Amino acid sequence: MTKPPPNSNSDLVRDIIIGMSDGLTVPFALTAGLSGVLNTTHLIIVSGLSEIAAGCISMGLGGFLAGESEVEHYDTELKREFSEIDTVPKTELEKSLSTQVALQISRDKNRWAEFMMKLELNMVQPARNRAAKSGATIALSYLAGGFIPLFPYIVTRDSKTGFDISCIVTILALIIFGYIKSKVTGQPLIKGTIKVASIGILAAAAAYLLAKAVS
Amino acid sequence: MTKPPPNSNSDLVRDIIIGMSDGLTVPFALTAGLSGVLNTTHLIIVSGLSEIAAGCISMGLGGFLAGESEVEHYDTELKREFSEIDTVPKTELEKSLSTQVALQISRDKNRWAEFMMKLELNMVQPARNRAAKSGATIALSYLAGGFIPLFPYIVTRDSKTGFDISCIVTILALIIFGYIKSKVTGQPLIKGTIKVASIGILAAAAAYLLAKAVS
Repeated sequence: MTKPPPNSNSDLVRDIIIGMSDGLTVPFALTAGLSGVLNTTHLIIVSGLSEIAAGCISMGLGGFLAGESEVEHYDTELKREFSEIDTVPKTELEKSLSTQVALQISRDKNRWAEFMMKLELNMVQPARNRAAKSGATIALSYLAGGFIPLFPYIVTRDSKTGFDISCIVTILALIIFGYIKSKVTGQPLIKGTIKVASIGILAAAAAYLLAKAVS
Repeated sequence: MTKPPPNSNSDLVRDIIIGMSDGLTVPFALTAGLSGVLNTTHLIIVSGLSEIAAGCISMGLGGFLAGESEVEHYDTELKREFSEIDTVPKTELEKSLSTQVALQISRDKNRWAEFMMKLELNMVQPARNRAAKSGATIALSYLAGGFIPLFPYIVTRDSKTGFDISCIVTILALIIFGYIKSKVTGQPLIKGTIKVASIGILAAAAAYLLAKAVS
């Protein structure tokens, strides 16, 4: 009847989605943009690989450090709640939903502090030691996503053929990814799929037109 | 004594941070990587602009659609809570913290549903009509961040000078951004600043070495 609370499995799915969304889109758009102004694939591949390395590290390390900060932030606030419970228990009791609730909760200090974290800050305890796994998942998903638009330029010798194949496989990949993403996040399937595919196509179109315009 | 709950101002700050983190990092790394293999700045500028356009759209539109989905998701779950309150009120009463709490809360159906949303799903009502603003803020912040590493290549004629100036201004910008970010998110100032700067420098070093290696 009720949805289960977020668990480590849904965290994993969320990290894959974060990494793959940008991984499929940005390298696709960049290589498409460059294919409009370059005839050979060499520099497209160099740019694509540089971008994937940069995006991978930026998002992966960013995710890792954000996960670490979340745990630190929770711990700081939790310490503050405990100290408030000790120093100003009456104020904290009044802040609770009602005196009756307060009396019930205040029997257990841990539960009380946890309750105040949720009530005042809407914070639940983040999973420990997840930061590294989260960062790695985001980085690998970005890498996996980024290779889909890039590999056609590696296997073909001219940028026009590379562009055509890259468009076909990436748009297909965006549709499949959009469908799976909508399914696991419980969004309307068709609407969700169209959303994901549109972002990729729009970004590529913008990059293509901009590259043409400045060349 | 207590931190205020997230408001629209902190949402704005969060969106600026999201956009600017990647905006400063990825275009910096990409252009640095390309400067190692190209002597003229023209293609570095084209690549940089394409990447900024792509990243801007991918992150901005992504943020906009995520904001929309969040509101939709909340509304779906809220509807379910109301229907559960109507069809199986006893189950919902038992799930509440205690019978006493339950009795207090169940006097007001709106409050009851809102309480269950927080208790069961840890969801608070997202701000309405924020999605578009959020997307635009992320996109503009990416754009602003991305131009800092790119403009040295535009104002200089050779890629080596561009690279040197780009490193200096971007590392400076990363330090300032890292400091402000740590300040507004309440993180330790020096540690937080070093974190932000390291991501940018590591991403640029990886992109630079990779571009050199494949060229």
